[in-house]
Amino acid sequence: MLFLARMDVHFPEDMDPDTMADFQKREKAYSSDLQNRGIMKGIWRVVGEYSNYSMYDVDGHDELHSIFQGFPMFKYMDVKVTPLATHPNATKADFFAPVEGN
Amino acid sequence: MLFLARMDVHFPEDMDPDTMADFQKREKAYSSDLQNRGIMKGIWRVVGEYSNYSMYDVDGHDELHSIFQGFPMFKYMDVKVTPLATHPNATKADFFAPVEGN
Amino acid sequence: MLFLARMDVHFPEDMDPDTMADFQKREKAYSSDLQNRGIMKGIWRVVGEYSNYSMYDVDGHDELHSIFQGFPMFKYMDVKVTPLATHPNATKADFFAPVEGN
Amino acid sequence: MLFLARMDVHFPEDMDPDTMADFQKREKAYSSDLQNRGIMKGIWRVVGEYSNYSMYDVDGHDELHSIFQGFPMFKYMDVKVTPLATHPNATKADFFAPVEGN
Amino acid sequence: MLFLARMDVHFPEDMDPDTMADFQKREKAYSSDLQNRGIMKGIWRVVGEYSNYSMYDVDGHDELHSIFQGFPMFKYMDVKVTPLATHPNATKADFFAPVEGN
Amino acid sequence: MLFLARMDVHFPEDMDPDTMADFQKREKAYSSDLQNRGIMKGIWRVVGEYSNYSMYDVDGHDELHSIFQGFPMFKYMDVKVTPLATHPNATKADFFAPVEGN
Amino acid sequence: MLFLARMDVHFPEDMDPDTMADFQKREKAYSSDLQNRGIMKGIWRVVGEYSNYSMYDVDGHDELHSIFQGFPMFKYMDVKVTPLATHPNATKADFFAPVEGN
Amino acid sequence: MLFLARMDVHFPEDMDPDTMADFQKREKAYSSDLQNRGIMKGIWRVVGEYSNYSMYDVDGHDELHSIFQGFPMFKYMDVKVTPLATHPNATKADFFAPVEGN
Amino acid sequence: MLFLARMDVHFPEDMDPDTMADFQKREKAYSSDLQNRGIMKGIWRVVGEYSNYSMYDVDGHDELHSIFQGFPMFKYMDVKVTPLATHPNATKADFFAPVEGN
Amino acid sequence: MLFLARMDVHFPEDMDPDTMADFQKREKAYSSDLQNRGIMKGIWRVVGEYSNYSMYDVDGHDELHSIFQGFPMFKYMDVKVTPLATHPNATKADFFAPVEGN
Repeated sequence: MLFLARMDVHFPEDMDPDTMADFQKREKAYSSDLQNRGIMKGIWRVVGEYSNYSMYDVDGHDELHSIFQGFPMFKYMDVKVTPLATHPNATKADFFAPVEGN
Repeated sequence: MLFLARMDVHFPEDMDPDTMADFQKREKAYSSDLQNRGIMKGIWRVVGEYSNYSMYDVDGHDELHSIFQGFPMFKYMDVKVTPLATHPNATKADFFAPVEGN
Repeated sequence: MLFLARMDVHFPEDMDPDTMADFQKREKAYSSDLQNRGIMKGIWRVVGEYSNYSMYDVDGHDELHSIFQGFPMFKYMDVKVTPLATHPNATKADFFAPVEGN
Repeated sequence: MLFLARMDVHFPEDMDPDTMADFQKREKAYSSDLQNRGIMKGIWRVVGEYSNYSMYDVDGHDELHSIFQGFPMFKYMDVKVTPLATHPNATKADFFAPVEGN
Repeated sequence: MLFLARMDVHFPEDMDPDTMADFQKREKAYSSDLQNRGIMKGIWRVVGEYSNYSMYDVDGHDELHSIFQGFPMFKYMDVKVTPLATHPNATKADFFAPVEGN
Repeated sequence: MLFLARMDVHFPEDMDPDTMADFQKREKAYSSDLQNRGIMKGIWRVVGEYSNYSMYDVDGHDELHSIFQGFPMFKYMDVKVTPLATHPNATKADFFAPVEGN
Repeated sequence: MLFLARMDVHFPEDMDPDTMADFQKREKAYSSDLQNRGIMKGIWRVVGEYSNYSMYDVDGHDELHSIFQGFPMFKYMDVKVTPLATHPNATKADFFAPVEGN
Repeated sequence: MLFLARMDVHFPEDMDPDTMADFQKREKAYSSDLQNRGIMKGIWRVVGEYSNYSMYDVDGHDELHSIFQGFPMFKYMDVKVTPLATHPNATKADFFAPVEGN
Repeated sequence: MLFLARMDVHFPEDMDPDTMADFQKREKAYSSDLQNRGIMKGIWRVVGEYSNYSMYDVDGHDELHSIFQGFPMFKYMDVKVTPLATHPNATKADFFAPVEGN
Repeated sequence: MLFLARMDVHFPEDMDPDTMADFQKREKAYSSDLQNRGIMKGIWRVVGEYSNYSMYDVDGHDELHSIFQGFPMFKYMDVKVTPLATHPNATKADFFAPVEGN
């Protein structure tokens, strides 16, 4: 099943740059892994904001919540989740490219 | 450039079923054409609502507005558009499957 | 998977009482069937409002959207859906009573 | 009487992990006790958020407020309460499973 | 138990004055009866608006919803209900005057 | 004249318990005095929130603002005030019990 | 006592121009009278909107609500009222010009 | 030209009383000067809130913004500005009293 | 002085296409005239919406409100106006191109 | 392509004046450079607020997001971006003055 998430990041104002860079590095690794495993189908930056829209294909809600909680920056993120169904006007069952190598 | 749109449809309460069916049929044809031309990269139903999230890849704002205005049901839709940029954690330049036949 | 829905009903002001009663009768039958099949786990009236909170246990988003669309009063309802996961403090895997006869 | 609550938890950003873990441990014990006593009829995690929906069956408002105030994490929670009545389409008087051992 | 309600009335713009006056007359009778029975503890006009705040003392949610549904103008009202508990700074158990004749 | 106020209290997260208890003790004394003088006609806790609805009968706006400013916890409160008039359906001129001893 | 009101006017879309002009003529006469009697201390148009901010000096809430209800266009107006007190930085007790002839 | 401003003050919670008193003293002097110069036509306290509505008569936007920025407490204020025009129902060109001595 | 306006157009659902086209034709002529006279400095379509952002350079609020009221489609528009001042980082006194022919 | 941005600045309350002045100095230099390069077509102060509306002409979303992220004060700004298209009533293709020296 597909879910759209909007994530807004709010770091504490006094976080030092090294800590922030470390968070971002670990976040990137975590996100890459989710993409490589075909769970995160896409992620895009909202222009002008420290926010993203991202899409997830999972088998259930517990798995999805566990994935969100696993984000290194989870405690600094506001996450809003929208469940998505097949649209009657869709011409494909899956709009996303297959995972490379699969 | 990529844009995310959320569209909410509000038909007049007294629209007769045939008119509605005709709108939906023309909307589907229009939407299919946009998908076949690689402009609409995806469209998904918001569960429980007469709404969708859809993604567009266009060269400019005039083209995009013209596309929205061309929807047969445009006058019954509320459209909110969010410009999307490449996310630093993205592992691919394009998350969407290529148009079939291209 | 479990979903919480809040539904707000807005009938047209000039709907005649017989039509309204017919809608409500068909809605009740539809709702009863969903409960008997173990899909709708519960439904409660919001005090003072023509609204309900209801819970659904389904296998996927397409099934859930199809269920919502099937409500006889769907075109008069605003539906907001929240996906629910297991809470770490829950003492049971399922808080709802089993369907009678199962 | 039944009440639906939505609770959103906001811990201070600088709370140390041990303090947080201790809060969560005491919260779990408190929540379990409420469930065992048949007061909290269910609790579910909102996917992607440090939030829950939970349901309470109590005899009065003073009892309910006292229960909320008793949560170890009460000062870090925003709680919104909705009173629920019997829905005319409900097929059961009580949708929740009986407390085990009762 | 005590509940605070805010009610906002929205009559259709084309309702004729006689119909409106009849609604208001029946509403007044219904409201008076609730006050005489000690259920509606008070009702006040929000200055400048076709709205009221009113307070209800009832034994349960089904009774309260039934009372709201019984208002002759119920279908033209938006009702928002807030459950109230005893405040620790209250100097009385009941702030309202006893029903005359009781 | 009657005014309805909703007050929401937000203490700083790092306020020590003794300071908080002292604030609450002084608040209670101040509130009792207002009730004894017939100014605060009632005060109720919003279930689940550190908030109250309270009613005031005063001769003017300067007096009322001065009363609010006098609350020991005023700087930690958000106060929203609604002026109330006599409702045409009210069966009494004053819904509140007389101050004891008066 | 002083009150600030914001009024937003929403005429039905199909109101004929003569009816509208008649409403506006009667509204102007009513408003002039309130100004001449020193009740309406001022009225200003919100630039770009069919709205005004206006100020009222009255002795009580019943009088004020009665004044609002008396506006010929009352049923087409949304009115929001804010009670105003003396500001500690005010250099005058009354900022408004005395009624001519007084 | 006339502008209505609503100002909401939010001092840091840990500001010491002397600093706050000094801000308020300088604010009062600044506000008095604006009133004496006929720029600030009036200022009123919103009952129950650390907020005011105030009116300004200036020749242009740069002058007005400069006036706002000059408030000693500007960095602690949220300011919302509404441009006001002559209302067709106004019986006077200027509702405010002339500056004394002019 | 410069003002930014956001205008949202809401035509009645049953307006016939000829009437709509006539409104739009007259609106275009009116808008062109404002641009030619150097009053409307610019106008842009909000992508996906029947809305615009436009900028106005006028001498006063009465003139500006009169301009808005003069729009043929004024009664179908929601207009929100923001007064703009010179920004300290601006490198020019006027960002707009001179009116041709001036 | 043209984008309208609204930026609201929120500095930490305890930022010292020298740090703030340094931020503002670097922001001004960055903003001037964008204007000189013809990217930022205009910038205006919202009267009464530490906010601006500014317009950008860029070739794509990645470039625009990169420009926003480059603002020295980016981490203290809330940025909301609106994509703008050509309005059918526009009398010019470009409302902005050419960059001096070009």
